[in-house]
Amino acid sequence: MLNFNFYNPTQIVFGKGEMKQLDKLVPKDSNILITYGGGSVKKFGTLDKVMDELKKSNRKIFEFGGIEPNPKFETLMKAVKLVREEKIDFILAVGGGSVMDGTKFIGIASCKDEYIGREEELLTQGMISVEKTIPFGTVVTLPATGSEMNNGGVISNKENKLAFFSKKSFPIFSILDPELTFTLPKTQVANGIVDTFIHVVEQYVTYSVDAKFQDRTAEGILQTLIEVGKETLENPTNYDLRANLVWCATMGLNGLIGAGVPQDWSVHMIGHELTAIFKIDHAKTLATILPATWKVRKVEKFEKLVQFAERVWNLREGTDEEKINLAIKKTEDFFNSLGITTKLSDYGVKESDIDKIINSLKSHGMVKLSERKDQTLEITRKIIEKAL
Amino acid sequence: MLNFNFYNPTQIVFGKGEMKQLDKLVPKDSNILITYGGGSVKKFGTLDKVMDELKKSNRKIFEFGGIEPNPKFETLMKAVKLVREEKIDFILAVGGGSVMDGTKFIGIASCKDEYIGREEELLTQGMISVEKTIPFGTVVTLPATGSEMNNGGVISNKENKLAFFSKKSFPIFSILDPELTFTLPKTQVANGIVDTFIHVVEQYVTYSVDAKFQDRTAEGILQTLIEVGKETLENPTNYDLRANLVWCATMGLNGLIGAGVPQDWSVHMIGHELTAIFKIDHAKTLATILPATWKVRKVEKFEKLVQFAERVWNLREGTDEEKINLAIKKTEDFFNSLGITTKLSDYGVKESDIDKIINSLKSHGMVKLSERKDQTLEITRKIIEKAL
Repeated sequence: MLNFNFYNPTQIVFGKGEMKQLDKLVPKDSNILITYGGGSVKKFGTLDKVMDELKKSNRKIFEFGGIEPNPKFETLMKAVKLVREEKIDFILAVGGGSVMDGTKFIGIASCKDEYIGREEELLTQGMISVEKTIPFGTVVTLPATGSEMNNGGVISNKENKLAFFSKKSFPIFSILDPELTFTLPKTQVANGIVDTFIHVVEQYVTYSVDAKFQDRTAEGILQTLIEVGKETLENPTNYDLRANLVWCATMGLNGLIGAGVPQDWSVHMIGHELTAIFKIDHAKTLATILPATWKVRKVEKFEKLVQFAERVWNLREGTDEEKINLAIKKTEDFFNSLGITTKLSDYGVKESDIDKIINSLKSHGMVKLSERKDQTLEITRKIIEKAL
Repeated sequence: MLNFNFYNPTQIVFGKGEMKQLDKLVPKDSNILITYGGGSVKKFGTLDKVMDELKKSNRKIFEFGGIEPNPKFETLMKAVKLVREEKIDFILAVGGGSVMDGTKFIGIASCKDEYIGREEELLTQGMISVEKTIPFGTVVTLPATGSEMNNGGVISNKENKLAFFSKKSFPIFSILDPELTFTLPKTQVANGIVDTFIHVVEQYVTYSVDAKFQDRTAEGILQTLIEVGKETLENPTNYDLRANLVWCATMGLNGLIGAGVPQDWSVHMIGHELTAIFKIDHAKTLATILPATWKVRKVEKFEKLVQFAERVWNLREGTDEEKINLAIKKTEDFFNSLGITTKLSDYGVKESDIDKIINSLKSHGMVKLSERKDQTLEITRKIIEKAL
C-alpha cells in the first residue's frame, strides 16, 4: 500500500424525504444563493421544495440558474458578480455534477479579490492556491460525478477544460435523496452509471500495491453498478435500485478507493478533449476510450486486468489473456446495454480528426499519461485509433 | 437502504514514516498534553519520536501516562485536572483504543465545568449532550477499535462500562504508521483482528435492506482479515500484511459500512459485562459470544448468514442451513487459528455465573438487544449458555 492522506469532512444526508433537513443545515439570518442548471429542477418541483424549506427561517434568498453542462467560465463569472454584490454567505447547489462543480468555482473565485480585472488568469494560476471559499451545500439530482462528496471540479473555457481541487472546496453537506433522480432522462442516468464505473476503474486497473480494502471496495462498487445499472434504467422509480446507484456514484470518487493506490486518469484526460472539441457527452467519451486503453495497454495493466476479470466478472476459465479479453468485451457489452456505444466513429469522429485531438492534449501538457506516466502521445494516438 | 447521516471529518495520515507530519498537524505556540498507556510507547521509542517532532516548534508539552486497558474513570479524572490546571489546548493520544477512548473522555470532561464537584454524574448524564471538547489527534500503535476515526469511546467505572459518542469527539487527525505496531505482543494483534471482525459483522449480519455498497464493503473487510490475519501474526514486520490490517481496523468502525443498514451490537453489550465482571480481554469476550449468538439466532439472521457463508467463506454447496453451520464453524476456526478460544469456560466462567451476567445486563438496561430489539434476557441467557 502506498502512503496516503485521507480527509473528507462533507456531511452526507441520505434518503427519501431528507430535504426536510435543509432548514437545519443552511445558515439562518444570512444571504443564500441557490445555483442550478437548465430548469429541470424548476420543472419537476425540486426548486420549490428547496424554497419551502429555506423560507422556514429568516434568510435572504437569491437564485442563479442556467449553469450549463461543462459549465462555462463566463457563465460562472456572472454568478461571482452576484455573490459579491449581494454579499452571499452560503451557496446551495441544486443539480448534478456541472452545477456542483460550477458552484465550487464560484465560491473560490468570489474570494479571489486579487484577480479582479484579470479574471481569466483564474483559469491558469488562480486555482492553484486556494485559501478561502464561500461555504456551500448541495442537493443532488443526478448521480454521476461524485462532486457532492469531493473537493474537485471541472469547468470549460472555449476549447479548454480546467480541472481544479482544493482542501477548502468540499461541500459542507450534501443531501442525496434518490427520489429526486427519478425524473432524469434515461440517457443522463446511463451517463452517470458509466461515469461512475470509469471513475472506479481509473483508481483500480493500474498495478497492484496489495491494497486489499481499496481493491475489494472498488470491486464491490463495480459489481453493484453491473447489478443495478440496466435495471435502474428500466425501473427508474424503484427506490432501492436507484439508492444503490446514488451511493455508489458518491463512493466512487470521494477519495476512499483511491487512497494509497496508483491512479490512472488518462481516460478522463482524453475524454475531456473529446468533449471540448466534439461536444460529446462526458461519459460517452469515456465509454469509447476506456476499452481501447485496455486493449492497447494490456501488458502494462495485466495483473489488475486479470483481477478485474476474475473478481468483477467472475471469469475463472481459460488463460489470463482470454480472461482479460472477455472482461473487456463484457465491459463494452455492459455500456452498450445502457444504450451507450463504445465506438468513437458513432459520434462522427473520423481518423482525420486525430491530429487535432493529439495537438489539443499536447497544448494542455497531457504528453505523459497513466499511472506510470509512460503513456506517450504516440500510445494515446493508438488508443484513439482503436476507439474509432 | 435505510436513510442515514454520514459525517467523518478526521484526517487520516497513513503510512511508514508519516510521524514526520506531526509538527505540521499539531498546533504551535500552545500547551499540548500527550496521553499514553502502560509504557510500551516509551519502551519502543514511539514517545521519543513524538517528542522529537513536537519540539520542532514552540510548544509547552505535558505528559499523562498510565491510561489502563478499559480506562478507568478515576484515572481519566486525574488527566482532566491536569488539562484544567495547565490550560491544555490540544491533546495527542499515543496508543491504542483505550488511550484514544480515554482521551475523548478527558477532552469532553475537561470542558464540562458545570460538573465540577459532582464528577461521577458525568457517567450517567454528563456525556449525553456534548457541546465542546479539547481538540485532539492520535498516533495509533494498535489496530483494533477504530477509535482513531470515530467519535465514540468506552470507559470503565468499577463494574460498569460506559459507551459514549458525540459529534465533537472525532480526532482532528490520526497518524497510522503500520510500522509502529510491529512490536505489539501477538495476543494484542490477535485481539485487534477479532475485534475488527466482530465490529464488521455487527453491522452486517442482521437483516437485508439491499444496501449493496455497504454489504460488499463489509465483506471485503472480512475477506481481508481472513486473508491477512494469521499471516500478520506470524510475520509481524511484514509491512503490507500489517498495513492491510491497520486500514481494515479503521474502516471497520468509522461509520462507513454501518450507514444505512440495521446494526446489532448485542455481542459487544454482553462482552462489556464479561470484561467488567471477569476481566477477560474485550476481543476474547466477543469471540465467545458471537458464534453462540449466531447459533441461537440462526432463524432471525438467516438471510444474511447465508450471504456471509457464500460471499465471505465462498461456501456454495449444500443447503442454506448447512452453509450457515459451516460458516459459523469456519469463523470459530479462524479465531482459534489466531490463538483465541471461543469457549467462555476456557476463561473460567461457569454456569453458576450466568445469573450475575444477566443481572448486570438488566441493571444497565440491556433487556432488549439486537437489530430488532427482540433479544430478551431469556434469549441472551441461552446465548451465554451456548458460549460456555
